[in-house]
Amino acid sequence: MSHAHSFHVSKDNKSSVHLKWDNSLAPTLTVDSGAEVSFDLLDGGYNQFTATSTAADVPNFQLALGDPAIGPVFINGAEPGDVLKVEFLDLKTAEFGWTAVFPSTLGFGLLHEEFPDPALKIWDLKTHASEGYTVFKEGIHVPIHPFLGVVGLAREEVGEFSTIPPYETGGNIDCRHITTGSTLYLPIKVKGALFSCGDGHAAQGDGEVCGTAIECQMKASVRLTVVKDKKYLKTPHYQTTPEHSVNQAKLTGKGEYVILGIDKDLREASRKALRGAIDWLEAEKGLTREEGYMLCSVCADLRISEIVDMPHYAVSCAVPLSVFVGAPYV
Amino acid sequence: MSHAHSFHVSKDNKSSVHLKWDNSLAPTLTVDSGAEVSFDLLDGGYNQFTATSTAADVPNFQLALGDPAIGPVFINGAEPGDVLKVEFLDLKTAEFGWTAVFPSTLGFGLLHEEFPDPALKIWDLKTHASEGYTVFKEGIHVPIHPFLGVVGLAREEVGEFSTIPPYETGGNIDCRHITTGSTLYLPIKVKGALFSCGDGHAAQGDGEVCGTAIECQMKASVRLTVVKDKKYLKTPHYQTTPEHSVNQAKLTGKGEYVILGIDKDLREASRKALRGAIDWLEAEKGLTREEGYMLCSVCADLRISEIVDMPHYAVSCAVPLSVFVGAPYV
Repeated sequence: MSHAHSFHVSKDNKSSVHLKWDNSLAPTLTVDSGAEVSFDLLDGGYNQFTATSTAADVPNFQLALGDPAIGPVFINGAEPGDVLKVEFLDLKTAEFGWTAVFPSTLGFGLLHEEFPDPALKIWDLKTHASEGYTVFKEGIHVPIHPFLGVVGLAREEVGEFSTIPPYETGGNIDCRHITTGSTLYLPIKVKGALFSCGDGHAAQGDGEVCGTAIECQMKASVRLTVVKDKKYLKTPHYQTTPEHSVNQAKLTGKGEYVILGIDKDLREASRKALRGAIDWLEAEKGLTREEGYMLCSVCADLRISEIVDMPHYAVSCAVPLSVFVGAPYV
Repeated sequence: MSHAHSFHVSKDNKSSVHLKWDNSLAPTLTVDSGAEVSFDLLDGGYNQFTATSTAADVPNFQLALGDPAIGPVFINGAEPGDVLKVEFLDLKTAEFGWTAVFPSTLGFGLLHEEFPDPALKIWDLKTHASEGYTVFKEGIHVPIHPFLGVVGLAREEVGEFSTIPPYETGGNIDCRHITTGSTLYLPIKVKGALFSCGDGHAAQGDGEVCGTAIECQMKASVRLTVVKDKKYLKTPHYQTTPEHSVNQAKLTGKGEYVILGIDKDLREASRKALRGAIDWLEAEKGLTREEGYMLCSVCADLRISEIVDMPHYAVSCAVPLSVFVGAPYV
């Protein structure tokens, strides 16, 4: 990055790697609002697997090292009640990735009771990178679609909180639609915001059902900007690019605005996401709450972003921006 | 329809309208496998609202008349253990539709406690039909994307079962992706299958969060074919067309194969959908169960199809067919 206000945080600085959200952690970097920061990230398994690992290595995996985050970055001027805007400028995967089925005893994965034996798939992320895919096995190609599983801020509560579940301040939200060109908004709870990220994924389905995506080391560049006027924002929100929109075919060209609900109960997470969407439609589009509720029912989509990061699940409520075609809505 | 084997079932024949799934109902029509059948359907509210209804009419709405189905159609040769393939040939909306927020007391809608007052939106489905949208209010257009909320077969169990919740034999699955050109597969539990449908929707988001979509009367044409060799199919499955695929941008051209999980608990519904996807990948693509589990984690999507048809919710696990690029998978 040649930007005058660009900074770099590396996994090689071990003091910047943390496995707990803790608002007493010393910042690894302090920047002004609007700074571009690049990160050189460990993978979601703390690089415990290599390109030559096999299923025999899975039982030795230490879950306690799961989902390391790198940071925190202190943003000058960020105050509790503000929102941090995170723009994803660039995401580069390493040359290999992995997907594991952990032993049932770890209780990880949506069907863990039915998959007692460990399994490991090592993915070649280099050979067909320019064609945009990686090979699962001969005849099955999975498109590469990189994003960060972990993106979040320090919590308001004092203490240490595992980086494995997501919280209302973000963290391990595992949202596959937040890729290069997307913008994430996070509620700030502490002075300086204290931003951290990690857990690169080369590809994932909504849900991350076996508990792991295509996990990989990643280099990520983001722009961090403090926003003062979004008091209604209570959970992570994100906006996708048209290119990465998953709207139905007739809805094109504008991406989606998406609200995350996070809870230990999936239905309650869905309610939080929907409530956040109605809040947003009221605050930003001037709809009544009844209008917002009905509009969501006829065109917004509930998706299960992750169903494995116990004890918290994440549900997305996605509003297609192409429904807004004229004043006062655009 | 000019097809030699085409038949018609109308709402005007009141004996063909039923509000309960009941495998003792007399067939309204008997056809051979492969027949095309057209239906003239009541809307999901038994036509209780008209184009001039207002919010003041909502408290008089009788929920007991909700989700009327028309049928059942007996298909010769259909036996328990077989599968009924339902191809959606044509779906035509009426000239108006409606979306209601019912009073909290009905307990209907994902946020019903927070919306005590009734609301009603009447949609004009005629003026901009050729442009593919309907107007929510000036500046907000919702694309028309018709499908049937209710598509199902008689249950194995003796007795009467409300048409409001969906079951493993289908019914009120409220799956917006099953539109013209899509194919639905339903597990047959009784001789003749006993197919019924209803509840036309001009548009809906995944979830149908306020409890109603753009509800409308509809004319639907389907082809009904008995399939003998899909013993693994335990819940409704469907395949979408490329045009109506909601895959991420890089996955194009082949649509999705989707498995529904239906349960009173959303997480359990998700587990059923995922388990069904793994069953399908094993039976139809020859993957091991571990391969199926991992492939779903990296590229299949969990979506909440409906979260309001108490007491049963429907979750879709969608596998993008474009990952299958060569032998033996295509």
